[in-house]
Amino acid sequence: MPAIRNALIWDAGRDRAEYGDIVVKDGFISSVTAPKEAKEPILYDCKGKCLVLPGLVNAHTHVSMTLLRGLGEELPLMEWLQKKIFPVEDRLTAQNIRSGADLAIMEMLAAGVTCFADMYYFMDEVAMSVLESGIRAALCRGLVGDDPVKLAENLALAETYNGREGRITVQLGPHATYTVQPSALEQIAATARDKNLGIHFHWLETKSELDLLRNEYKTEPADYLEKTGLLGVKELILAHCVWHPAEQLPAVARDNVTFVHNPKSNMKLGSGYAPVREFMSSGVRVALGTDGAASNNRLDLWDEMRFAALIHKGYNLDPTIAGARDILKMATVNGSYGAGFKDAGYIRAGQRADMVIVDMDNPRYVGCDPGNVPEFVVYAGSSRDVRATVVDGKVLYRDGEFATLDSEKILAAASRDRRILAG
Amino acid sequence: MPAIRNALIWDAGRDRAEYGDIVVKDGFISSVTAPKEAKEPILYDCKGKCLVLPGLVNAHTHVSMTLLRGLGEELPLMEWLQKKIFPVEDRLTAQNIRSGADLAIMEMLAAGVTCFADMYYFMDEVAMSVLESGIRAALCRGLVGDDPVKLAENLALAETYNGREGRITVQLGPHATYTVQPSALEQIAATARDKNLGIHFHWLETKSELDLLRNEYKTEPADYLEKTGLLGVKELILAHCVWHPAEQLPAVARDNVTFVHNPKSNMKLGSGYAPVREFMSSGVRVALGTDGAASNNRLDLWDEMRFAALIHKGYNLDPTIAGARDILKMATVNGSYGAGFKDAGYIRAGQRADMVIVDMDNPRYVGCDPGNVPEFVVYAGSSRDVRATVVDGKVLYRDGEFATLDSEKILAAASRDRRILAG
Repeated sequence: MPAIRNALIWDAGRDRAEYGDIVVKDGFISSVTAPKEAKEPILYDCKGKCLVLPGLVNAHTHVSMTLLRGLGEELPLMEWLQKKIFPVEDRLTAQNIRSGADLAIMEMLAAGVTCFADMYYFMDEVAMSVLESGIRAALCRGLVGDDPVKLAENLALAETYNGREGRITVQLGPHATYTVQPSALEQIAATARDKNLGIHFHWLETKSELDLLRNEYKTEPADYLEKTGLLGVKELILAHCVWHPAEQLPAVARDNVTFVHNPKSNMKLGSGYAPVREFMSSGVRVALGTDGAASNNRLDLWDEMRFAALIHKGYNLDPTIAGARDILKMATVNGSYGAGFKDAGYIRAGQRADMVIVDMDNPRYVGCDPGNVPEFVVYAGSSRDVRATVVDGKVLYRDGEFATLDSEKILAAASRDRRILAG
Repeated sequence: MPAIRNALIWDAGRDRAEYGDIVVKDGFISSVTAPKEAKEPILYDCKGKCLVLPGLVNAHTHVSMTLLRGLGEELPLMEWLQKKIFPVEDRLTAQNIRSGADLAIMEMLAAGVTCFADMYYFMDEVAMSVLESGIRAALCRGLVGDDPVKLAENLALAETYNGREGRITVQLGPHATYTVQPSALEQIAATARDKNLGIHFHWLETKSELDLLRNEYKTEPADYLEKTGLLGVKELILAHCVWHPAEQLPAVARDNVTFVHNPKSNMKLGSGYAPVREFMSSGVRVALGTDGAASNNRLDLWDEMRFAALIHKGYNLDPTIAGARDILKMATVNGSYGAGFKDAGYIRAGQRADMVIVDMDNPRYVGCDPGNVPEFVVYAGSSRDVRATVVDGKVLYRDGEFATLDSEKILAAASRDRRILAG
């Protein structure tokens, strides 16, 4: 039962942060005591100079796309996909998927990310990378068209990995409205309900998808989600949601539905600004994601928090919206809950011990105190200040070193794969 | 004549980066040779694993506001200023200004910033901090109303510090259209022309300033700059420019005029999106700034580059605009030139030796090669990767250590001052 000692602890359920010790047992937080009271061996001594936050959650990404980072920048979406991304994706091997996932997990652990939700292919490779690295993940196999082989792969992934070590959930992964016909989507949703699985789906990333629903299918977004059966699945992770209309929000403000806001990717690809102010006022659960590294180009939730907190203030000419406290919840507990990990995201007894330890002893945190932690984290913080990342009570990253990853080997393998793919 | 050895060197004048050595003499770059050719003693050995970029320039800030960081977040602009900022500013002492400036310079040097343009008061303290730290700066005393004492202070600042060590330029600092009457502005501009000084001015940060020009003064922005004589001064640094209309741009696309884009501050305060696409297509020189730490809340040009590169793509639904190559020029040579340092901003013989050394041996730079340096820097890079910051050929920051600053003392002084000010 080791303890994180004398930390300034932030928990979304309280107004103020508090100094204390965090005792960990069997991967869960067993107690939070007054500072320097815990008698357990020390896991990390914060000496009153570090924050402890719940682990950050990257609620929509494609981790193996780290190998495609920077391939074709500043192109119109379809030209980028068809000329740069798809030709390389056609050549990706299972081994590439693994080396890209390892690289991504290395980047994320060093930035305080403890959990991610992923959609791609050769997903057994991603699952192995998750299991070996110690991170937590929600995984699905991307499903395009009406392809029984891909669906079978997704179901086999669920059979093998769903619930594994308490660190993996598996969803079905229908790709998007424009790549999966409504009839196939209905079938996937029915299968998900039948197998008690969630669904992870790209949703209204671009305006053309809204046009497709309205002009082709003569329907509105919430009605489409209802009719295809998607709204009835265990957990429904909807990525992007840029063009989801405000009046269609109340119908999707449900406990099993999570909208994942990917502000940087949406801007980089010129897709637009998701109406996050409206999501929040409608009571929809919002989480944050980076999307793949080819359209971001970082897997850094600190970046994502800051963009989410600032762009909507500017867009709406209103500095009072998208407050830091809500943004930090989006990046932590909202993401875990949405990804099917309903006992993570707070620093309190009974929760999974997923945490990030953040240095406050630097110029950017002068003025930070128990009353203003979320504001300092969101507006002044960055992944530079991450000292340690803890999943299930295990310190996976600490001061530049990884407990479970061979960083030199991973960098070398990814660099080699990238040279071959881009060459 | 020491040399930076075996670096991947980016210079805005070339299409591609190149590996090479950089030889420094008397504060200037004396030559750039093929890699590992320079025989001089080694200043920094990059071993082929670091980028060298021109130093980053923070072209509009108020450095001592680091002491006000996080004081009153997410408030409407006037409430924030009147209830939170002004009451504290009224109590700032000369010593506070110094400790805030020291803290800011520490933050900036650790993030690769080699030069900043500042407007505040007790500016002798800022000048001393600049001289002792080794950084470069363009300084002015903020002028409000028609106050001969403040103008005399600004002129004394110029008399004492303009051109000092080749590291300081001094401008006159009329605050804004809404705090300085046109007649006073005319007088300040005439004084600037008479003394061969530049001007640093807040320009159309909020829509109310555009309304003031149109409704009260019955004029359009470029005409106002012309009539008051501002367009005729040595260098004219215009901060914010959020509401400068597109059709009023050609008249200000002049060599002596620099628009400073402050994307994060403009969003955080709900001021809006500057029409940067239009600035660029009109040929106006654009630089980047953080504004003060109370409205950002970082002094980090990497953040500013990424926001500038992404938000306009999203706003205009066009991924092809605000390209990384232009953004990196904004953050380097455009800022130096605008601040009156016309021999800085490139890595080539004859330029001031202001540089930032950036680690590429990490997951975020896998795939970076001589052909895509600006894209990796702007979209995937961050201040986390800054290994060293060099001004006038002197290594002022290296791997967490400062050559000229006592970081513990600065953190302690700033923390104490902040507690007193906020208490």
